[in-house]
Amino acid sequence: MHVLQISAAPSATALTADLAAVAQATLHDHGHQVTTVDLMAIDWNPVVTAADYGLAEFTAPVGTHAADATARDTLSPVVSEHQRLLADADLVVFTFPLWWGGMPAILKGWVDRVFTDGFAYGLRDDSDNPRKFGDGAFSGKRGLIITTAGERSSSFEGRGINGCIDDLLFPVTHGVFWYTGIAPLKSVTLLGIDSPLWKGIDDARSQVRQRLSEIEDASAIPYRRMLEDYDEKRLLRSDIAGGRSDLGVHVRSA
Amino acid sequence: MHVLQISAAPSATALTADLAAVAQATLHDHGHQVTTVDLMAIDWNPVVTAADYGLAEFTAPVGTHAADATARDTLSPVVSEHQRLLADADLVVFTFPLWWGGMPAILKGWVDRVFTDGFAYGLRDDSDNPRKFGDGAFSGKRGLIITTAGERSSSFEGRGINGCIDDLLFPVTHGVFWYTGIAPLKSVTLLGIDSPLWKGIDDARSQVRQRLSEIEDASAIPYRRMLEDYDEKRLLRSDIAGGRSDLGVHVRSA
Repeated sequence: MHVLQISAAPSATALTADLAAVAQATLHDHGHQVTTVDLMAIDWNPVVTAADYGLAEFTAPVGTHAADATARDTLSPVVSEHQRLLADADLVVFTFPLWWGGMPAILKGWVDRVFTDGFAYGLRDDSDNPRKFGDGAFSGKRGLIITTAGERSSSFEGRGINGCIDDLLFPVTHGVFWYTGIAPLKSVTLLGIDSPLWKGIDDARSQVRQRLSEIEDASAIPYRRMLEDYDEKRLLRSDIAGGRSDLGVHVRSA
Repeated sequence: MHVLQISAAPSATALTADLAAVAQATLHDHGHQVTTVDLMAIDWNPVVTAADYGLAEFTAPVGTHAADATARDTLSPVVSEHQRLLADADLVVFTFPLWWGGMPAILKGWVDRVFTDGFAYGLRDDSDNPRKFGDGAFSGKRGLIITTAGERSSSFEGRGINGCIDDLLFPVTHGVFWYTGIAPLKSVTLLGIDSPLWKGIDDARSQVRQRLSEIEDASAIPYRRMLEDYDEKRLLRSDIAGGRSDLGVHVRSA
């Protein structure tokens, strides 16, 4: 596989930097080609600007400019370069510390800038249906999150006060990956790293090593496909939902 | 009230810039003192760097440096300045377009940089309990999200394919606001702005105007307090949860 790892490790000495290196080495040892982009090292600018679209200033909604620049091939060289990296990948790995329940700004801004309309979404099939949520530009690719969080792991369980980790990651696994056709694999979540219950860095490295060594055979989170299970209002059909309306309802039952 | 509005409008011509201006004017008309920080206009850097903590480079976990710099008062002038703005506010308003299910990077990075350990969290009460989730540095303040999203509004309902908007905003309303003691008000969500069903800008302005004109009397989302309803593993007590484990379980029932 071609693997693109986007690392938002805040520094070279951070735990996530260590784990990104473990992921890279494990994938390499299993015969995969791996490109790791260290966003801090390349001084990635996370802010969408008019220059991304070859413009001096915005005069219309940002999405309109983005779609136009994508269609006309006038995206800035840096955005185009990262789109090529993404296009070439069979597996996309986001490695980051969970900050305030989500991706650090530097990684959120990689998505904001690189996933443009007309490249990552906004496509239609032959019947003029939108290609999203299970279909799309990136169909055939798979996506993986490797993340760390400080508070004790039980606080990220179903009744945990931080909110269930799968629900916190839903905007990425479902909203970024699945939306664009990327099949999301079960996330590697290393929780409680600031708690006395943490088992330490060797255990964390070993979890990453094990998951990455089996990644080619890993199955994806079975999110539901838009054109199969949702009605024209984009609501999950009520006969399927069975009275539920939580985020877990978007996962197919076993 | 002193109101601090943090606006992540991507440009001066964006819908969210228009709505931020409506919010500012409405609050002003009702006798409140309003400071609006236009993050794009001030060229806000969303990336946490060692310079934030008066350092040349990171040699320990970022959180350790942040807590240390907060305690020693060696935070960079720009972080300190924004902490003062936040400290002075009775109401904090985040105004932003929903990008990829969350805040644009520029706003996420305002939280990442300004909400430091020892300033926004990491405090303890007289009994050595952590002051968080309903208590904390910002107890007494209130928080409000004003956000816009392109896809049709039904897709953000309970069974909607984008995920329920309240669940998508949970990392902010519960994870940022409530975690630090800020009482989150019901969000102003203007959905479907790219859909043919959208009622247009006058309707959006009018919704913002109405909500902001009544904001002083608005009640908060009744999230549960950590020290009352959760056990020592930070799990919601099972007798309260009643078998549920979705994000909505953290809201007190009527």
